[in-house]
Amino acid sequence: MIPKGFRFGAAHCGLKNRRNDVGIIVCDGPAQAAGLFTTNLVRAACVEYSAKMVDGPIRALVVNSGNANCCTGEQGFKDCLRTAEITADVVGCHPAQVLVASTGIIGRPMDMGKLERGIHMAVDALCSDPKPFMESILTTDLVEKFAQKTFSGGSIYGLAKGSGMIAPNMATMLAFLVTDIPLSKAELDMTLRQACDRSFHCLTVDGDTSTNDMALLLSSGLADGACQPREFQAAVDEVCESLTRQIARDGEGATKLIEVFVQGTADPARIARTIAESPLVKTAMFGCDPNWGRILAAAGRAGVSFDPLKTRLLIRASGKSFVLYEDGLPGQFDESEVSTALKADSVEIHVLAAEGRSAKVYTCDYGYGYVRINAEYHT
Amino acid sequence: MIPKGFRFGAAHCGLKNRRNDVGIIVCDGPAQAAGLFTTNLVRAACVEYSAKMVDGPIRALVVNSGNANCCTGEQGFKDCLRTAEITADVVGCHPAQVLVASTGIIGRPMDMGKLERGIHMAVDALCSDPKPFMESILTTDLVEKFAQKTFSGGSIYGLAKGSGMIAPNMATMLAFLVTDIPLSKAELDMTLRQACDRSFHCLTVDGDTSTNDMALLLSSGLADGACQPREFQAAVDEVCESLTRQIARDGEGATKLIEVFVQGTADPARIARTIAESPLVKTAMFGCDPNWGRILAAAGRAGVSFDPLKTRLLIRASGKSFVLYEDGLPGQFDESEVSTALKADSVEIHVLAAEGRSAKVYTCDYGYGYVRINAEYHT
Repeated sequence: MIPKGFRFGAAHCGLKNRRNDVGIIVCDGPAQAAGLFTTNLVRAACVEYSAKMVDGPIRALVVNSGNANCCTGEQGFKDCLRTAEITADVVGCHPAQVLVASTGIIGRPMDMGKLERGIHMAVDALCSDPKPFMESILTTDLVEKFAQKTFSGGSIYGLAKGSGMIAPNMATMLAFLVTDIPLSKAELDMTLRQACDRSFHCLTVDGDTSTNDMALLLSSGLADGACQPREFQAAVDEVCESLTRQIARDGEGATKLIEVFVQGTADPARIARTIAESPLVKTAMFGCDPNWGRILAAAGRAGVSFDPLKTRLLIRASGKSFVLYEDGLPGQFDESEVSTALKADSVEIHVLAAEGRSAKVYTCDYGYGYVRINAEYHT
Repeated sequence: MIPKGFRFGAAHCGLKNRRNDVGIIVCDGPAQAAGLFTTNLVRAACVEYSAKMVDGPIRALVVNSGNANCCTGEQGFKDCLRTAEITADVVGCHPAQVLVASTGIIGRPMDMGKLERGIHMAVDALCSDPKPFMESILTTDLVEKFAQKTFSGGSIYGLAKGSGMIAPNMATMLAFLVTDIPLSKAELDMTLRQACDRSFHCLTVDGDTSTNDMALLLSSGLADGACQPREFQAAVDEVCESLTRQIARDGEGATKLIEVFVQGTADPARIARTIAESPLVKTAMFGCDPNWGRILAAAGRAGVSFDPLKTRLLIRASGKSFVLYEDGLPGQFDESEVSTALKADSVEIHVLAAEGRSAKVYTCDYGYGYVRINAEYHT
């Protein structure tokens, strides 16, 4: 169910080939908004702009793909402001009520003529179907990504794009969530931050952080009913986790989703991330190779203290569970059986270093496709 | 010139296919030694053992490739000790005077029968030619790596292996330097540490740190002349830097050596390493794509403060220099000209963030070959 008060529009204006490249979400009344933005020192104009505007009431979000409008100097900031102004004019609101997001090539001036035409067309196409909008934010993504959750009196709907965490030529991560559940600005902020910490912040495709990353949560407040903040948090968590899995699974060149679980140590998340980003682990997973030595060695270089002799390493795939390493020695497993199980499109790696809290990181494997996408696509 | 007092031997005993897989360096008298060892928490038996023995006088170094003898439990430690004992017996010294190094597959028991035969054959083959020994330490390496420096009264000779920083199936980094220049243990320790900090510690192929890494410097003290500690340091630096370049150039699947220079900021080495390990930068270099947005974005996520608007980004290749980005804007360059220049087998990336101290990191590009080597070679 699409949350009340939101309409979606999209159009193809020529910023990228064929597919829709401009998208708009309009809220019929002023929406409360919360946003999280890339921590990269190098940030696109739209990130600087939207980070400022997100605290006020929001009427529209305009997104383009094909051009990141990043490292484009003073002109880039002017173009971003102008994008908000054009949108505000067409939608009928104040420019400060418009959020802007961009994704695509870094360092290219924005073709404002095309974008302006695209915004007009996208607004003309506004409707309750988010599908054309989903397409408008894609770059190297192979599939559209969305998730939803319906309550008794309202709903939440999430859309995302992302394939490489950053591939400035093409891909960055964007996530937009809309809801009609009425919530305060403070509640929205807290909910989005918590949900991101458990989902998007645990996602790595190649370890590269984007210049244009943005996650937004907009509430129209128009739902007939309401829901408890706890129920709402759980729903946003669920939507964000689903989008996170979809992004990892659609990672550039990926053949499988990999979930890395680490239990124990002072910083299990750091160990999980080191394993998830290890090129040797990722290529082994691509090759369906139960190469536990690479997993253990990646854990060992994470800079977090643990005792390898008391560590247990498991892999779960195709509904089976295999102990690959335990108490300083290889586990008793049949390599070809594990290799066959690893052909699944979803694999779990478990590192049990000690009792204590655990962490999870979502990633994917590295194959020839990653090299092809990132080496053969020229600026 | 081979330093006086050292002989080299090697043999094929069947731990890996075809090529020599056991190597021995013997010093005619007790040599002073210095060593640096992997910082990975997961360390092979030989690393634990040699780190203890390196402080005493050394008569022999025995190395095998094809089996890392890592994660092999109690038996692995026994096998390592036994390797030292066998070598000591054949060479005629005390086991504590033998250093042991291993490289190859993790988690496989060592075939001590083969290794023992190999040690006997390698000792029988001892001579002044280090070439067969060089072969005995290779794994996924395509070429042998050596460098030398001759003084008026003596010389230094260095040998290394390494292709992935770690690929537990196959590759880790080993470097052995021998000299006849008489130096104290303290001088050797300091010289090796300084040289490594400027060379091997600035080298990354895939960011994965090995379980078996080892750099050793042995001095027979048998040179006719002597040299100043400063001259010796410069020579060891030069030999180590040459080996470092050779390893980067022979990185798994690499088509080019990449040197990343960063000037300014509180931690230029961290920025340089982040760029050097960015899969997006490495695949762009493989594709000869002057994708400066990826370089800048990698710098921006390194966690080190700098002002991207005051940063300058250059690439040097094929004897030409190109400003790719300056003062927040793309440089004026011809993309196809830069792309053609990037076809060179050696590329420099320069990030000038501010005045101040600089750092350099050696790496290579990522191509299909990296995936092939690491995904298709099964345990």
